[in-house]
Amino acid sequence: MKRIGIICKTGRLEPLEIMKEFLPWLRERGVEFFVDIETAQYINMKGYPRSEIPHLAEAVVVFGGDGTMLSVARIVCEQDVPILGVNLGGLGFITEVHKAEIFDAMEEVLSGKGLLEERLMLTACVQRHGEKIAEYTVLNDVVINKGALARIVEMETFIDRMYVTSFRADGLIVATPTGSTAYNLSAGGPILDPKMDCIILTPICPHTLTNRPIVLPAGVLVEITMKTHAEDVFLTLDGQVGFSLRQNDVVSVEKSPFRTRLLIRRERNPFQVLRTKLKWGER
Amino acid sequence: MKRIGIICKTGRLEPLEIMKEFLPWLRERGVEFFVDIETAQYINMKGYPRSEIPHLAEAVVVFGGDGTMLSVARIVCEQDVPILGVNLGGLGFITEVHKAEIFDAMEEVLSGKGLLEERLMLTACVQRHGEKIAEYTVLNDVVINKGALARIVEMETFIDRMYVTSFRADGLIVATPTGSTAYNLSAGGPILDPKMDCIILTPICPHTLTNRPIVLPAGVLVEITMKTHAEDVFLTLDGQVGFSLRQNDVVSVEKSPFRTRLLIRRERNPFQVLRTKLKWGER
Amino acid sequence: MKRIGIICKTGRLEPLEIMKEFLPWLRERGVEFFVDIETAQYINMKGYPRSEIPHLAEAVVVFGGDGTMLSVARIVCEQDVPILGVNLGGLGFITEVHKAEIFDAMEEVLSGKGLLEERLMLTACVQRHGEKIAEYTVLNDVVINKGALARIVEMETFIDRMYVTSFRADGLIVATPTGSTAYNLSAGGPILDPKMDCIILTPICPHTLTNRPIVLPAGVLVEITMKTHAEDVFLTLDGQVGFSLRQNDVVSVEKSPFRTRLLIRRERNPFQVLRTKLKWGER
Amino acid sequence: MKRIGIICKTGRLEPLEIMKEFLPWLRERGVEFFVDIETAQYINMKGYPRSEIPHLAEAVVVFGGDGTMLSVARIVCEQDVPILGVNLGGLGFITEVHKAEIFDAMEEVLSGKGLLEERLMLTACVQRHGEKIAEYTVLNDVVINKGALARIVEMETFIDRMYVTSFRADGLIVATPTGSTAYNLSAGGPILDPKMDCIILTPICPHTLTNRPIVLPAGVLVEITMKTHAEDVFLTLDGQVGFSLRQNDVVSVEKSPFRTRLLIRRERNPFQVLRTKLKWGER
Repeated sequence: MKRIGIICKTGRLEPLEIMKEFLPWLRERGVEFFVDIETAQYINMKGYPRSEIPHLAEAVVVFGGDGTMLSVARIVCEQDVPILGVNLGGLGFITEVHKAEIFDAMEEVLSGKGLLEERLMLTACVQRHGEKIAEYTVLNDVVINKGALARIVEMETFIDRMYVTSFRADGLIVATPTGSTAYNLSAGGPILDPKMDCIILTPICPHTLTNRPIVLPAGVLVEITMKTHAEDVFLTLDGQVGFSLRQNDVVSVEKSPFRTRLLIRRERNPFQVLRTKLKWGER
Repeated sequence: MKRIGIICKTGRLEPLEIMKEFLPWLRERGVEFFVDIETAQYINMKGYPRSEIPHLAEAVVVFGGDGTMLSVARIVCEQDVPILGVNLGGLGFITEVHKAEIFDAMEEVLSGKGLLEERLMLTACVQRHGEKIAEYTVLNDVVINKGALARIVEMETFIDRMYVTSFRADGLIVATPTGSTAYNLSAGGPILDPKMDCIILTPICPHTLTNRPIVLPAGVLVEITMKTHAEDVFLTLDGQVGFSLRQNDVVSVEKSPFRTRLLIRRERNPFQVLRTKLKWGER
Repeated sequence: MKRIGIICKTGRLEPLEIMKEFLPWLRERGVEFFVDIETAQYINMKGYPRSEIPHLAEAVVVFGGDGTMLSVARIVCEQDVPILGVNLGGLGFITEVHKAEIFDAMEEVLSGKGLLEERLMLTACVQRHGEKIAEYTVLNDVVINKGALARIVEMETFIDRMYVTSFRADGLIVATPTGSTAYNLSAGGPILDPKMDCIILTPICPHTLTNRPIVLPAGVLVEITMKTHAEDVFLTLDGQVGFSLRQNDVVSVEKSPFRTRLLIRRERNPFQVLRTKLKWGER
Repeated sequence: MKRIGIICKTGRLEPLEIMKEFLPWLRERGVEFFVDIETAQYINMKGYPRSEIPHLAEAVVVFGGDGTMLSVARIVCEQDVPILGVNLGGLGFITEVHKAEIFDAMEEVLSGKGLLEERLMLTACVQRHGEKIAEYTVLNDVVINKGALARIVEMETFIDRMYVTSFRADGLIVATPTGSTAYNLSAGGPILDPKMDCIILTPICPHTLTNRPIVLPAGVLVEITMKTHAEDVFLTLDGQVGFSLRQNDVVSVEKSPFRTRLLIRRERNPFQVLRTKLKWGER
């Protein structure tokens, strides 16, 4: 690889510090790099819009937390460009490389010795009066969530056109395996091996206590019809608000044609991050 | 008892039907009654504002569901007037008398043979910049809840001035024993005997998976400081939105000096309602 | 299909009643049948040992509940013979045909119009001092469970030779998707689409509250080493006790080369059984 | 206080080390002490049976973990003797004084400046054919638990002679507030302020998913009838096996007339132990 994109979490000084060493290091190795505009202006160099970077680079290095990774994943997925996540402080679920390891990890990437892990993404569409009015691609989750005014949301749910149930709850999470350790976990859902091709359906605080998280094969079509007449029910994509839903809107979720391609290290134990983040303790 | 207040759920025809039989029945027994304005106008008689009724009547009969009961409980509590809840359709947790039992139950009430069950209520105050800006009394719960824009709420919590933890969650429920079978149950909290003097603290979808519902004696002072800077965190009282909270607002909750006094039937098994509502099945 | 095996739950009169109509019905259609010994002796005809039936028949009809189905599934799996489960009373998760539908369902089976659903099975091996001392195939679950004398079981767990954690719990369930609605559900595990190829790892009452159910692809090797020195830790297979485990025994679980082939009806909605069994209610 | 009992966890060297300093320290202050037999023989001095110590001493110091404390609590409760728990290593829920604090804590105890915290205990009786055949007092919990052979236990439960439900589960925990952070927590029960007078009823892996932990006032009588015919259902008291139960045995549990009186330090924050043991993290 000879062309690397660099995207940093905005408003943080740490990535700028790292750039002082990282960019010369890349230059020494004859690697061309494309830094995002915001970061570039702080270090007085030419920058590129985030959305352009996947068209220029063969791989993108992301400095930030899981949130930054999620937003970059959505940008690069259509160009199939792999990304390497570097966490600046606390360990993240998808930014497994710590900033101290960045040079070792880059060595692996540049020499082609790094590994790639493909992650399922989801596509969510909103239909209103039979017409598609919005479409999104996510790496973690599609969430229907009530605001503070709504008391409950009723969501009639079908899987492959078969009626499942009408969830009456605070909301409903449709998560990927990658997203299983995000909101899904707080809502009582299971942990999935992130490499799997599955979709998780987890109701948030359901009124019917026997409603439980459901794991489905990735090939299914999940359709959720908003039965509640409420002003403040929202569709949230990867934790970022996207859309205000109305009664009878249909949210359909299925496997995206795109995938997130994560660059990972060779010697990695995927359970290490669970033990650390969930404080499972060690032997 | 010779003076009875009558408050009906608005927008429903059923109570009006019941009134046709119920009012003559009361008149026959020489009982004076005070019907709420809305209901009264439908049946062409003099009505009284809901808030005046507890000043006129010795007991109030409520026709409606748990929601109507909660709002009447807040109105009557200062005058210490007992209330009898009549459910119109489905069984409620606090409207245990079915409409078919209304005459038998009233017979007991009028003859003084009915029983009274006292229920703990909570007082919630909001302080901003050290000044009290709102105060509420509830029978079910005080809930701090994030809207759709906020991603997480951080709530620093003290009990009797002792630091407990800083909950990072979708929200926090402070419930009475009566409220234990409402939102608290959906959020994973325990069921409490409704006659108890306890306060339940239940985090909603906490990020820290070991945060669990905590049951406290009713005498404590719970203080919750909003640490999050967010536009859409709300204080909800008995399921009705009350208040938009700002960063550093302090919500303090403690036992109210008032209590809800429920009129209940003599032969009642309090676990019957649990078995029915939660579909525990019978022997 | 011209040769049908018949296996009935023992000690029940109902299957015998059904035989009076069912066997003549089969005879009329020129179908040869092989009834299990126990049932046969009650109706004075030649019977066959359960284990021989899959060698004689092209399909087996099972009259009983989920328990009977599980035991038949283990018997027939090596011969790849499909089975049709007929529930006698309450609906089962894997005996979806009610006794009243038996003739319609059989019509479909004999005419080859029935559908087949393949279900993942698991193989569990026990190794002691490096030697394999037991091997089992199951359709629902492999469970390590403490008896009443043990206070806790410590189970060091590896997936594909990678250390996961050392579960300290009442036990550990390794379930198939079919088994997801059995013990796994009571222990807090998720519901899986039964047609999936996944393995679920669910700790039973774990001491570490952040230990959560984990869903894995079916290709993995799960290895669990008993770290506890206790007299009464048991390996249970499909809910039937199989084996007393000792300290340092290794239980390894992986996808079985065999599958259960369930005969199912064409017009079936797999979520109907969930709604009914879990009382989710209908629209 | 001039007479102190000393009971140490058996089979551990640490307490013996501490004795070398602790006993002379007590002697200097003119305090008479009574060391348990097992510990005494290791340090060549006269010892006393554990059960005699509460008759001789005004307070008992326990060196060990929560398990040792539980067994001492049962021994001393009838004599109303207060106990001070010293944990040797990891923090315990009821042994809050670390071994490094022992001299400061003793100073408080001897000078009468220490505080006392009273804890509810439970009495459990087993009745067979209408006759009482066993009785126990516990500080943490009374547990009915299935062994490995039983598949499920059915337990018909009454509270104050009123039918609650027939729990079908792995077992049932009846816990005190002190016991709320023990087995109860692993089984999904709430945390209770340990000073409260409440009883918690928590089913273990219930088949009926809507069965939930129930908190009751301490004054109630809980009666549980074993409906299952099984060889291996056991009554466990404070985590120690007590009794093999048979079909139709009735286990009745109620508030004990005895209480555990814990010596605690003045400046203590009871939530600190929760934050540490449950890894809630700090500010």
